[in-house]
Amino acid sequence: MPDGRAARMLTGAGVSPGAGAGPVVRVAGSVPEPPAATHGGTAEDARGEKAAATRALEAVAADLEACGERAAAAGNADARDVLGAQALMARDPGLADGVAAQIDGGTAAARAVYEAFAVYRAVLASAGEYLAARVADLDDIRDRAVARLLGVPMPGVPQRDEPFVLVARDLAPADTAVLDPALVVAFVTEEGGPTSHTAILARTMGVPAVVACPECADLAEGTRVLVDGTAGTVHVDPAETEVSAALRRSAARASLLAESTGPGATRDGHAVPLLANVGGPQDLDAALAAGAEGVGLYRTEFLFLDRAHAPSDAEQEAAYRAVLEAFPQGKVVVRTLDAGADKPLAFLPPPGEEPNPALGERGLRMLRRHPEVLSAQLTALRRASAGLTTRLEVMAPMVTDVEEARYFAAACAEAGIDHPGIMIEVPAAALRAGDLAPEVEFFSVGTNDLTQYACAADRQIGGLARLQDAWQPAVLDLVALTAEAAVDTERGCGVCGEAAGDPVLACVLVGLGVTSLSMSAPSLPLVRASLARHTLAQCRRAAVAARSARTADEARTAARAELPALPELGL
Amino acid sequence: MPDGRAARMLTGAGVSPGAGAGPVVRVAGSVPEPPAATHGGTAEDARGEKAAATRALEAVAADLEACGERAAAAGNADARDVLGAQALMARDPGLADGVAAQIDGGTAAARAVYEAFAVYRAVLASAGEYLAARVADLDDIRDRAVARLLGVPMPGVPQRDEPFVLVARDLAPADTAVLDPALVVAFVTEEGGPTSHTAILARTMGVPAVVACPECADLAEGTRVLVDGTAGTVHVDPAETEVSAALRRSAARASLLAESTGPGATRDGHAVPLLANVGGPQDLDAALAAGAEGVGLYRTEFLFLDRAHAPSDAEQEAAYRAVLEAFPQGKVVVRTLDAGADKPLAFLPPPGEEPNPALGERGLRMLRRHPEVLSAQLTALRRASAGLTTRLEVMAPMVTDVEEARYFAAACAEAGIDHPGIMIEVPAAALRAGDLAPEVEFFSVGTNDLTQYACAADRQIGGLARLQDAWQPAVLDLVALTAEAAVDTERGCGVCGEAAGDPVLACVLVGLGVTSLSMSAPSLPLVRASLARHTLAQCRRAAVAARSARTADEARTAARAELPALPELGL
Repeated sequence: MPDGRAARMLTGAGVSPGAGAGPVVRVAGSVPEPPAATHGGTAEDARGEKAAATRALEAVAADLEACGERAAAAGNADARDVLGAQALMARDPGLADGVAAQIDGGTAAARAVYEAFAVYRAVLASAGEYLAARVADLDDIRDRAVARLLGVPMPGVPQRDEPFVLVARDLAPADTAVLDPALVVAFVTEEGGPTSHTAILARTMGVPAVVACPECADLAEGTRVLVDGTAGTVHVDPAETEVSAALRRSAARASLLAESTGPGATRDGHAVPLLANVGGPQDLDAALAAGAEGVGLYRTEFLFLDRAHAPSDAEQEAAYRAVLEAFPQGKVVVRTLDAGADKPLAFLPPPGEEPNPALGERGLRMLRRHPEVLSAQLTALRRASAGLTTRLEVMAPMVTDVEEARYFAAACAEAGIDHPGIMIEVPAAALRAGDLAPEVEFFSVGTNDLTQYACAADRQIGGLARLQDAWQPAVLDLVALTAEAAVDTERGCGVCGEAAGDPVLACVLVGLGVTSLSMSAPSLPLVRASLARHTLAQCRRAAVAARSARTADEARTAARAELPALPELGL
Repeated sequence: MPDGRAARMLTGAGVSPGAGAGPVVRVAGSVPEPPAATHGGTAEDARGEKAAATRALEAVAADLEACGERAAAAGNADARDVLGAQALMARDPGLADGVAAQIDGGTAAARAVYEAFAVYRAVLASAGEYLAARVADLDDIRDRAVARLLGVPMPGVPQRDEPFVLVARDLAPADTAVLDPALVVAFVTEEGGPTSHTAILARTMGVPAVVACPECADLAEGTRVLVDGTAGTVHVDPAETEVSAALRRSAARASLLAESTGPGATRDGHAVPLLANVGGPQDLDAALAAGAEGVGLYRTEFLFLDRAHAPSDAEQEAAYRAVLEAFPQGKVVVRTLDAGADKPLAFLPPPGEEPNPALGERGLRMLRRHPEVLSAQLTALRRASAGLTTRLEVMAPMVTDVEEARYFAAACAEAGIDHPGIMIEVPAAALRAGDLAPEVEFFSVGTNDLTQYACAADRQIGGLARLQDAWQPAVLDLVALTAEAAVDTERGCGVCGEAAGDPVLACVLVGLGVTSLSMSAPSLPLVRASLARHTLAQCRRAAVAARSARTADEARTAARAELPALPELGL
């Protein structure tokens, strides 16, 4: 401590790698909760309040769209999509009805907006991972509309000319979209998770980010911090020597990773295709830049979200074809619509209230209720692949037993899809992989859900992080059972959950018999480099050691003991 | 069809066994939704409306209590407790605040009650099995209060002098509590499940019941029906010969079961203690009458529900002692508080919003956040068992890994509890039973939750019934893994889920290596009779056959093929 200050290290979740240092800039203070005021009470008063509320919401929607266009002009097309979706929320007729009902009950416009949003907020917050991540978006719309109605300053990121670290409770897309990557050296948020917009946009912008860091609430404006988005730490008042060392390490690691290219393989040449998880054509640039050999998980639901009707056959075909065309020498594994649970669709509502959506009518369960949606998707996929050299594989989510696997294989056969497969994410499916294998051509293990169900621990609850760990020996057992059944029947067995992107666990998965790894593009270089530095025999010994352990921590330690450390990569 | 009418058979879930026939009596039509009326708008108007709403709710509460006292006088103390809890809901201050807020917003009293209840209803309906089952109770309170405020007839069961079959959408405790078992020969409801009040009270009254039978909505008043609460069927306009045959079979079966007494054992004398699942001292009479050899699952949470504070040490000790004293020669297995998920406690709120409570901070996870609650419970248990000959065993719910098992065993040791055990209801725990066994003295498999998690299928969603089946081969695998680990380490391995009460599956469980079976008291005689008619070797062959199957249906069929049919018992 050259200057005598006490060192302080805050911890959170590192969701975008690299290091950055600079003074803290906080997003403008939150908009106050509007008072529980009533309007004059006459029908005319109510009409006036409704008009004001409508104008405010429309102005917010227009602002968001304009902001999205600016971001797109600056090369960030993702931001335009995100902000466009947010503008749609601001114009939601159900929300407008809610506001009108509050005003009819005598409530003044600002408070009416606040109350109506509270109802939507509760629904979103309870609706599971995908929608819960949008609570921040909704709050942002509400705050902007309330700020307009109350005449207080609009929330958002203040303008700066010098590099800074942006600190906030959570960032709304409108906050992050117009930021200049040359000026923002890192993001730190109190809330959010790996699927929050902060995380997604930070990765897109290539800016280091730490989320779920509650202590950052106390960071005063101007405090100098060093953010490590790889380790998930925020160093408060760091010494300059520490900062320069961290930035040097970060740069050295980045350059080592940039040198790691070519198809995935162990040091002794055992090929392990390294594939990308994508949500649509917009993710292809990142996947290709990271050297993906193909797509191991194409999440088609992004094409279906936020729509009143299913996308047309032609629209689907175009979206699928764009992804297939990107990998003429590789394969693309498409997951059919995984609706339900945390990704409810307007045109495929669950048949009733679901107290636990993650255990509800989701994935293939939902598609069996709507076979026309499945059939249209499979047909669009077959058409999209016509005349292309890309190998198209299609898999169903949330398959639980033989009957469901058989159903999906038959639907694929009928639509002319040659390579049907299934996700293994339900414990029963992993336990009975030997029964399921003859029905399909390949497995893809979804370690996130598999861990969630095997340990009965919701992925969305921070307090259960210890149990949401794919290193839990029971989860490794389930992966091993699946891989063994695949070997016995000469099927492929990929992994497309977060576990595949962990450079140490990836080696263990290969050692368990997994034949390909699919992950978000930013994880590919480190996994490729890690695999290239270990032999298949080392991976197998690490797998045996991990399964011999009794806890997740012991499994991690035991596996590392079999895999030489790679300090140059921070491993 | 002697009279030429078309036969019609409705199906539902049989939740209280036996057969009954008679004319349909429907509960009085539902109270209409009050119009969206406003009051005069002055403060005085609002005061008047609030006073009317308060009077109506208080009158409903008083009626419910009076009804409970009448039921208790007729020997149904359970009903008094249930109705007392409902009266408490009617007097809930939060609800009163909600009504007042609606009235302050200009809404008239009846509509204000309706709206305020709608908010509570949504919360309850989404809160999981235990509370969702109370939605019917809440609707009943609302309808009674609204009926009073609108001056329309009170809902409920019309008075009759002749035997009848009661048909309803769902029954509220107030409907069923004052019924004369001599006049009601059966219940049929459109909604509800095995844990609904209809089911629980029907079993208490010994009246056959079929629930979850949506088609019964069309049954006209006076239609003659034959209800089979064992098979879950409702025969419309049955021939008299069919009715008398069904009643004869029902009586013969009842008398055969009454003859089945003594400790549980296979035909060749392999002892399998048959234990009861109880919620407290109030369930002891039924358990003893059914010949339970002890208690295999004492659900202590019933002592904690609906309270602002934990029960005192003395109160806990008395409740535990009463159950222990009932089985001086047997054992009592107490499950520590299973708070959270579908059984939230006022004084142990979850640390945050839980999008999927079944995958949340429940069971031991919650107790680790509140070690003082666990310690007080364990101490009360030790005190309660002092000087008694009963063997006290104590187990923790929702144990997932070694660390948690170790934590619980240490807490038991510290409190002086000699026989610590764990529930096996999380797939990871079953998969790693061999790691967990050295930490504790016994396992008890909770097949309901184990099936729910293994198949990722919510127990509360009717549409997923096919996957909520303990006959799923993957679930049998998990039970087998647990039982094998128990044998290897000379631990006991009981089953205390619904599976234990299935007379065929019970034999398979014994064949898998399960050492005791615990179930609700009404299931004991049939399981005892079924076990007594099959040898251990037959049970083992049935277990092997079931695990060789690839689907739940095939497993059931394969097991039955190894177990001679028992037509005299309806098996």
